[in-house]
Amino acid sequence: MRMYDLIMKKRNGGELSREEIDFMISEYTAGSIPDYQMSAMMMAIYFRGMNEEETAALTIAMANSGETLDLSSIDGIKVDKHSTGGVGDKTSIALGPMVASCGVKIAKMSGRGLGHTGGTIDKLESFEGFSTGITSEHFRNQVNRIGISIMGQTLDLAPADKKLYALRDVTATVDNMSLIASSIMSKKIASGADAIILDVKTGSGAFMKKEEDAFALAKEMVTLGKHAGRQTVAVISDMDEPLGFAVGNALEVKEAIETLQGRGPEDFVKLCMTLGAQMVVAGGKAENLEQAEKMLSKIIEDGTALRKLAEFVEAQGGNPAAVYDTTLLPQASIVEEILSEKEGYIEKIICDEIGICSLILGGGRETKESKIDLSVGLVLHKKVGDYVKKGEALATVHANDRQKLEAAKERFVKAYHYCDKPVVKAAFIKGIVR
Amino acid sequence: MRMYDLIMKKRNGGELSREEIDFMISEYTAGSIPDYQMSAMMMAIYFRGMNEEETAALTIAMANSGETLDLSSIDGIKVDKHSTGGVGDKTSIALGPMVASCGVKIAKMSGRGLGHTGGTIDKLESFEGFSTGITSEHFRNQVNRIGISIMGQTLDLAPADKKLYALRDVTATVDNMSLIASSIMSKKIASGADAIILDVKTGSGAFMKKEEDAFALAKEMVTLGKHAGRQTVAVISDMDEPLGFAVGNALEVKEAIETLQGRGPEDFVKLCMTLGAQMVVAGGKAENLEQAEKMLSKIIEDGTALRKLAEFVEAQGGNPAAVYDTTLLPQASIVEEILSEKEGYIEKIICDEIGICSLILGGGRETKESKIDLSVGLVLHKKVGDYVKKGEALATVHANDRQKLEAAKERFVKAYHYCDKPVVKAAFIKGIVR
Repeated sequence: MRMYDLIMKKRNGGELSREEIDFMISEYTAGSIPDYQMSAMMMAIYFRGMNEEETAALTIAMANSGETLDLSSIDGIKVDKHSTGGVGDKTSIALGPMVASCGVKIAKMSGRGLGHTGGTIDKLESFEGFSTGITSEHFRNQVNRIGISIMGQTLDLAPADKKLYALRDVTATVDNMSLIASSIMSKKIASGADAIILDVKTGSGAFMKKEEDAFALAKEMVTLGKHAGRQTVAVISDMDEPLGFAVGNALEVKEAIETLQGRGPEDFVKLCMTLGAQMVVAGGKAENLEQAEKMLSKIIEDGTALRKLAEFVEAQGGNPAAVYDTTLLPQASIVEEILSEKEGYIEKIICDEIGICSLILGGGRETKESKIDLSVGLVLHKKVGDYVKKGEALATVHANDRQKLEAAKERFVKAYHYCDKPVVKAAFIKGIVR
Repeated sequence: MRMYDLIMKKRNGGELSREEIDFMISEYTAGSIPDYQMSAMMMAIYFRGMNEEETAALTIAMANSGETLDLSSIDGIKVDKHSTGGVGDKTSIALGPMVASCGVKIAKMSGRGLGHTGGTIDKLESFEGFSTGITSEHFRNQVNRIGISIMGQTLDLAPADKKLYALRDVTATVDNMSLIASSIMSKKIASGADAIILDVKTGSGAFMKKEEDAFALAKEMVTLGKHAGRQTVAVISDMDEPLGFAVGNALEVKEAIETLQGRGPEDFVKLCMTLGAQMVVAGGKAENLEQAEKMLSKIIEDGTALRKLAEFVEAQGGNPAAVYDTTLLPQASIVEEILSEKEGYIEKIICDEIGICSLILGGGRETKESKIDLSVGLVLHKKVGDYVKKGEALATVHANDRQKLEAAKERFVKAYHYCDKPVVKAAFIKGIVR
């Protein structure tokens, strides 16, 4: 088999067989197929596309290209959640304890990424002493004992995807639905969970700006999950403005805690309930979504979920007291309001811009070497549809550097767009694909 | 400027500016743009195409990517000819002396290629002592003195094309008309001639199998030549069966000599007269094609062209006696006829297969290191449209190895297809593009 022939076949609109895709991925991972052939193939796929069978074969080949996480020693159905990412996405921190409180097993391996804020691991490090550098034994025992653990990425999961993504990133071949879906799903499948609940965002702050693209990606991923024998459901939700009010690591943890206390932001609570219900059903702990939602409401009302978070934090060396007293979380030295310069209804918030404000303040990573400031960020007071008077606070900014604060403020006010008439907000949950 | 943005632009159907193409080619030649980005770009161009301005910019950028041949010290209009290649293509050997006899300057730099037979340089080495390893001074003086010289490729002409072609060759991005045309024309433009006559072949033995593709390529190349300020004309001719009768190095030289003696094969004579007339007019030595053809007929009839070949051979150290006594050319030890196993009209000859017979006999290069046997090859006795009886000779094979001869014979007979009814042959000259 020659890579040249496979490029030619795809270029001419042909269908690659499972054997051909296996060959391509294993030889590329091994370094026997050069980058310049693979990038030509990726561009041919960009133009010709891949059908369901090809995309499934690619996903499974990439999932099997390296180590895989073996969760078999953990009892019960293991459920994983994946978000396509957005601004203010603190979902895992609230959702993990909620779902674990219902008896579903959450066993997650997580890495640190680049972005406007840190990833879930960074956010959890807002709890003093919290560590994801635990052993596999600790990890498994903890999940069996309390139902939830998050471990640092010690395994080389789906190395083919890592190598291929890096190549696509510099050759303008990222934005193809099949390639995006297979990249996400290969890692999820290698992560070993029995069921995968996908949190697919759409809007100005999401990777998928258009709703139809988000649905297309969701459908593709759900199909791939099923091909790999995993229960898979996708929830499509709005990311046209930040999720909840808080953007920034410790600030988001505080908001997640408030949510577990039953006083979270409306959109964020809605998302946690929707995803949570899917996870509880997938985990076999409820017969239907209605029953699952009732369970979730109960474990929030009676404090079980909040205690589960404290238990989880403590099990990984963190200080659980901060769960009950959020002043123990990292605090910024400067806290100031950003005032509205205009009056009117908030028509639109350029979501990505709010993320960049967090990055400017020091809350995210621009390069792998960047050090994150966990205390900084923003808490919005006005979201789309709200009426605001001139001089009223749009948000509170938390900073440790006067210059960065001013730069973030300047950018922040420009992200808000006003109008004269009341705004009709679109539904927050756009749909569910299963 | 970033290569990533250029790939994205082309991928999305945009037009690259001259500055962008200059950047891309100079940085790629310098090694600053990696192969994997260039191959993605080539695949994007394969799908999106390039318009006339983009193709011209690419051609000129490649022509200027290395050294160029300076012919300014040679008096008069320098005319170059380029063939897209085929089986039995000995055109340069007859055409050069013909055109030079009319006073047009032929100053050619030539390399050795891979193929069914050697290139023009290899064929000329059938004259004992002939050398292309001459100095630039010798080269220029010879052209000024006798009107013709061929020099080995000592300059690094269009290195960007060389590098890019090698990459396209392994990434299935060769067959795009704009890329093919720019590759050929960049080298021709760097070769310094004032006028370029293109010999574009079409049919089973040509790179362009379909006539419409050959015309499209011809048009594209003529346009590119004009963009570079060179007089450019393309002649499209048949390569559905071998050109003339002889296939093999010394055998083709013999046929070229016979042509200069006025007894060449009909199709080959037609091609030489058509191309020659274009070259003579382009070189300013005739007012029109009719006049040019008359001049060419005259210099063959009166022996001028044959003497010009002898003069040319002698000027580069070769033995001119072989021009008058072709038994002095390399001779094979085994000469045998290949007999027809069937009776009927020859309907079709799979042209490439005849070339492969020459390669099997040792007449061509499979790798750069292969040594060519100049004496071997085939002389056809029957071509398309001829009637042949069972046991009649289809061809004479010249070999130095019994085993190779048998292998070639076996392959040869399979390349001939017969039918019951007389065959109407298509016109040999398909058209002229200017």
